[in-house]
Amino acid sequence: MPENPLHLLLHPRSIAVAGAGNNPAKMGTLQALSLLKDGWQGKFYPIHPKEKTVLGHKAYASPLDLPEVPDLAMLVVPTSQVAPLLEDFARIGTKRAIVVSAGFRETGEEGRKLEERLREIAKTYGIRFLGPNCIGILNTAISLNVTISELEKRPGRLGMASQSGTYVTQTLSYLRERGIRFSKAVSCGNEADIDITDVLEYLGEDEQTKAIILYIEGIRDGRRFIETAQRITPRKPVLAQYVGGSVAGARAGLSHTGALAGPDFLYDGIFRQAGIIRCRSIEELYSHGWVHATQPPLRGNRLAVVTNSGGPGTAISHNADQGGMTVPRFSDALQAGIRPLIMPHAASANPVDLTFHLDMRVLVTTIPQLIMESGEVDGLVLHGAMNSGLMKMFHSHVSELMGNIPLETFLEQAAIDMSDAVTLPRKYNLPLIVSSFFGREDNSTSLYMDHEVPVFDSPEKAAWGMVTLLRHKEIRERKPIVKPVLPAENPEAARIIRTALAAGQKALDERQAKQVLAAYGVPVTREEIATTEDEAVKNARRIGFPVAVKSCAWEIMHKSGKGLIALNIRTEAALRTAFQAIREVAGQEIPILVQQMISGSREFVAGMTRFPGFGPCVLFGLGGVFTEALKDTSFRSAPLSRTEAEEMLFDIRAKELLGEFRDLPAVDCTALAGILQAVGAIALIHSDIAEIDLNPLIIAGSKPIVADALIVF
Amino acid sequence: MPENPLHLLLHPRSIAVAGAGNNPAKMGTLQALSLLKDGWQGKFYPIHPKEKTVLGHKAYASPLDLPEVPDLAMLVVPTSQVAPLLEDFARIGTKRAIVVSAGFRETGEEGRKLEERLREIAKTYGIRFLGPNCIGILNTAISLNVTISELEKRPGRLGMASQSGTYVTQTLSYLRERGIRFSKAVSCGNEADIDITDVLEYLGEDEQTKAIILYIEGIRDGRRFIETAQRITPRKPVLAQYVGGSVAGARAGLSHTGALAGPDFLYDGIFRQAGIIRCRSIEELYSHGWVHATQPPLRGNRLAVVTNSGGPGTAISHNADQGGMTVPRFSDALQAGIRPLIMPHAASANPVDLTFHLDMRVLVTTIPQLIMESGEVDGLVLHGAMNSGLMKMFHSHVSELMGNIPLETFLEQAAIDMSDAVTLPRKYNLPLIVSSFFGREDNSTSLYMDHEVPVFDSPEKAAWGMVTLLRHKEIRERKPIVKPVLPAENPEAARIIRTALAAGQKALDERQAKQVLAAYGVPVTREEIATTEDEAVKNARRIGFPVAVKSCAWEIMHKSGKGLIALNIRTEAALRTAFQAIREVAGQEIPILVQQMISGSREFVAGMTRFPGFGPCVLFGLGGVFTEALKDTSFRSAPLSRTEAEEMLFDIRAKELLGEFRDLPAVDCTALAGILQAVGAIALIHSDIAEIDLNPLIIAGSKPIVADALIVF
Repeated sequence: MPENPLHLLLHPRSIAVAGAGNNPAKMGTLQALSLLKDGWQGKFYPIHPKEKTVLGHKAYASPLDLPEVPDLAMLVVPTSQVAPLLEDFARIGTKRAIVVSAGFRETGEEGRKLEERLREIAKTYGIRFLGPNCIGILNTAISLNVTISELEKRPGRLGMASQSGTYVTQTLSYLRERGIRFSKAVSCGNEADIDITDVLEYLGEDEQTKAIILYIEGIRDGRRFIETAQRITPRKPVLAQYVGGSVAGARAGLSHTGALAGPDFLYDGIFRQAGIIRCRSIEELYSHGWVHATQPPLRGNRLAVVTNSGGPGTAISHNADQGGMTVPRFSDALQAGIRPLIMPHAASANPVDLTFHLDMRVLVTTIPQLIMESGEVDGLVLHGAMNSGLMKMFHSHVSELMGNIPLETFLEQAAIDMSDAVTLPRKYNLPLIVSSFFGREDNSTSLYMDHEVPVFDSPEKAAWGMVTLLRHKEIRERKPIVKPVLPAENPEAARIIRTALAAGQKALDERQAKQVLAAYGVPVTREEIATTEDEAVKNARRIGFPVAVKSCAWEIMHKSGKGLIALNIRTEAALRTAFQAIREVAGQEIPILVQQMISGSREFVAGMTRFPGFGPCVLFGLGGVFTEALKDTSFRSAPLSRTEAEEMLFDIRAKELLGEFRDLPAVDCTALAGILQAVGAIALIHSDIAEIDLNPLIIAGSKPIVADALIVF
Repeated sequence: MPENPLHLLLHPRSIAVAGAGNNPAKMGTLQALSLLKDGWQGKFYPIHPKEKTVLGHKAYASPLDLPEVPDLAMLVVPTSQVAPLLEDFARIGTKRAIVVSAGFRETGEEGRKLEERLREIAKTYGIRFLGPNCIGILNTAISLNVTISELEKRPGRLGMASQSGTYVTQTLSYLRERGIRFSKAVSCGNEADIDITDVLEYLGEDEQTKAIILYIEGIRDGRRFIETAQRITPRKPVLAQYVGGSVAGARAGLSHTGALAGPDFLYDGIFRQAGIIRCRSIEELYSHGWVHATQPPLRGNRLAVVTNSGGPGTAISHNADQGGMTVPRFSDALQAGIRPLIMPHAASANPVDLTFHLDMRVLVTTIPQLIMESGEVDGLVLHGAMNSGLMKMFHSHVSELMGNIPLETFLEQAAIDMSDAVTLPRKYNLPLIVSSFFGREDNSTSLYMDHEVPVFDSPEKAAWGMVTLLRHKEIRERKPIVKPVLPAENPEAARIIRTALAAGQKALDERQAKQVLAAYGVPVTREEIATTEDEAVKNARRIGFPVAVKSCAWEIMHKSGKGLIALNIRTEAALRTAFQAIREVAGQEIPILVQQMISGSREFVAGMTRFPGFGPCVLFGLGGVFTEALKDTSFRSAPLSRTEAEEMLFDIRAKELLGEFRDLPAVDCTALAGILQAVGAIALIHSDIAEIDLNPLIIAGSKPIVADALIVF
């Protein structure tokens, strides 16, 4: 495997910056100042057309004048100057660059050409670059910061790759306020060369990074993304936000980084396939990422809730329950340990609700410790730790009563020892999440944050912060994904497709489609074409009544509701009537398909569509008339391993139908998964196929059988 | 209508507090200090068994010693002292009380009895009280604060009723930090007397209150709650959070305020029926409530997005789209106005993305003004206003370059005029929501907050903050709810039920159930009971083939999958076979129901269940085998008006099935709504009925017909 390009990019010993000057209102200057002020120890070379010194450093008019070849070049210059400068750096042997400048693909055709030129330079000289239209990188381990914002000094454990620069700059003070710290963060911009998958791969290997978060507006190479993530996610949590999946989101993204967005439901499936936990907001992305980066893994789903107030306790319990956790009633022994510590009317069963209680140590240390020691839970959410924040609120009211006690003295007297409280997760190897309505103005909040115990500003968020750990437990416990071996091209299937294409068909007719499917092992209805009534009767006898009778021609892609289909034909007479009726609608020459009638009350749909960036994607869902009305479907990118195919079955809301259901046996999910694998394989083997639609896929007893099929070129 | 008890409670001229002393670590003292320190102008009378003065005021040993009858009594004393004290206050003529003390119903049977005693006292003397187990009230208009926390001095426009005391005390500094201010807030506690519906009703009439938020763990009198809310919600937004609907949530709530919780799906329906906007977290409740309290109503769904960063702009657009808004492309004229203000590569179409741009006035004033003037949108979400917060981040980097400029000078030089920016919503009567990663440390955030422009700390939240206004537009535009007139009791139906009960039946058989339904106008299948094969054949001829044949006995409540039912019988021979087959399973004496066979591919379910607090509730949903697997249902409390019945049809995810669908005509929703109304009426008229289950309710053509029915006592 070639070295990941991020390695050198994130560890340069020397950086040349084009676009830095002495005007502090310029972006390039601000970025260079971050380099110089935040503690990075490497060499800085400003490139400037006129200035002799920039920010106190000797400036050079051109890369060609530099005294050494810098490891990294940074370009913050007008769009037109980017390509020539990049080429100059490439020529002298610089191997990495960050192109901050915008005005490329995101602006239209002309910009696209300019961007293409940058790629050519990169290929020609072997220089790898980030951007254009990005904000750069952070590597807190070596205090490297090329963004415009000031860096938090303490290194963190959370790695980020972002298709928006804002999320590694404008948010730095937001993150500091919440105690969240990056290990490394990379703004990917337009991804003309290095892309978000490169960053993901790098962070997957990076030891400083305990959890990875991704902000995504569109993925270019879907397969590589999925496979890279699959290698990482069983051992290191990866979380992602995707916002390109609506008309408005897609347009905004296109003008932002020129990203080509796919529909929201596709990314839902892709993330599940990749083992990535999807987040619905940037807040969730950061805060849940930070939970994964700092807390021990969750080993079960039993949650303890400790609170000094009923409302938050109820809200935490309710939300944790909705996320799949239980809040088990504590054993009598554990409750007996807790009860002497709380007031008589307070609750000890779990949630433990101390109610109004001024001795904070009981809330933050004594009780949590008892609970963690008990072995009765797998994690704890705590609400109500508060000290100086609350005391500041009290002070103006009580100071007179307390002899005009100064605020400082008051706070000192009320201060509590948090040293045991903040180390509980490490001591017991159990995750702890804190909910508090007090921010950094409260010393208990600050102390938790500074000791890497995540604090959420509402109880519901704290509950979901714990639940996200449960999601990674499920991902850790996934069945292994064994890369599937595609079957060889089936000559009979190839012949059918070739013939149809040669005849100018835009789709296969139902019979042809079923033959192609059958060639790859997909169970289909027994059926035969009839061109006369008598032949139809003969076919029906061979197949066995009842039968279905359908017009069969590739031009008629959707037959239902047009009088082109007759189901449940039980007698010869009825068959003759149906035959004539269909011919009356569809013409006297139309071939008639006589088909085994499958009965089963569970109908599904399987299919395939190609999406830019992801190639053929397989669909599974609730079938029959409900496909459209309920849109209860799941997607995966092909090819599908056995595990991936089985998982996508259970992604639908109606998954209960797959098990024993009322008087019906469980569905043969091995067979069903096999069909999904075959659909993906067929699409990969036969690239002329644009779409596959198997609907309904009827469950007869426990066995899935394709009752209707459409294959479109 | 009697005067709402909250009026006097929230406007007392004098308050006596039992439980206040001179120890600042006691809750009663802290509460009394709030009364004294936060600006309320009334008279304060401490009741104390020993102290002569409390907090500088003459103390009285008993209510009987007071020099005047206080308007309000507050009790913060041990549980056992509450009843005697309340009775003393009641005796001297005090008409309102707040019982803060806990230890009542929430602790079990003994507490329940103590609470019952308080109710008796209230009834006997006509004293109305809040609590027990509550934290009290806030009325910012008169600076009245009886909670333990310091009051925000400026009155607000948001009214709150909470079944958790924390949400009107522990959160006060949280709210101040976010610029959210109450008009009035009431902690309801156990609701032994005054309940959350009383508070809702009061806030509905209160002119200072522009929007109402409710934190709910369980509603006791569902009908009164719904009808009260329905009177308010078309003109004043009401938002609610409910957290009792899970096993864990219910247990937590029970030990918290003794609330009896109903399932989550029930409250979903109740809130929709009441016109209440449901919130999923306390953060959403506060922040969305504040949006409604401060912003002009949304008149359409067209949103403008203005940003200085692509990521947030994309996230806002995506989330607004998901919430039902559009982000329309601006007209050429409007874009032509915007383009000269932004950089060449920046986007003007909507979102307007300025990218890195140091002139904040363009972002916060000039462009928003152009857009609001254009008439092309109904609201605007702005991201990226930042001034001192950002500058503080820059200062340490740039100060040396700027001649060691002091922070204050630097901030002064960078300060921007926000005076026009903050008045935009009022000037154009269009809602404005701000997204910023900077909190109060940034002066632009603070200025927005202080001028009642809501600021959210992430772009997604800002988008949803705008979307919540769209929800109230829909509620304003609901069809009027005309209180339904219940039909008179049908004598035939009453006779059938009476007879069945007399015979010891625990349910009606299918035939009886259908007769009861038909008596109230519900369309059911034609059908007749047969006791012999020949009679069955005669019946089938009269009804017309095909028919369904079923065993018919009340003991067999669920027939499917047991050989007790045969569908689609088309011939006499098949009928005889089926008749025998069923009798073989169910016994030779079983009556056989011969029934018109309804065919239709759309199947629904209608039903009725009784829930504590809400009485009979009507269910509608997707029917047939999918009822269980998809749980796609909606609920309403009976009786149902025409509007309510129609609305609940379209609450299901599969609502598309109700319109024209594939080759099927639109469902006759008037008829379908009529069935739901009838189901509710039957339950109210015949109180012996515990449950009704009409499944499937088949749509034949466009007409709904009940194909199977179960009525359980």
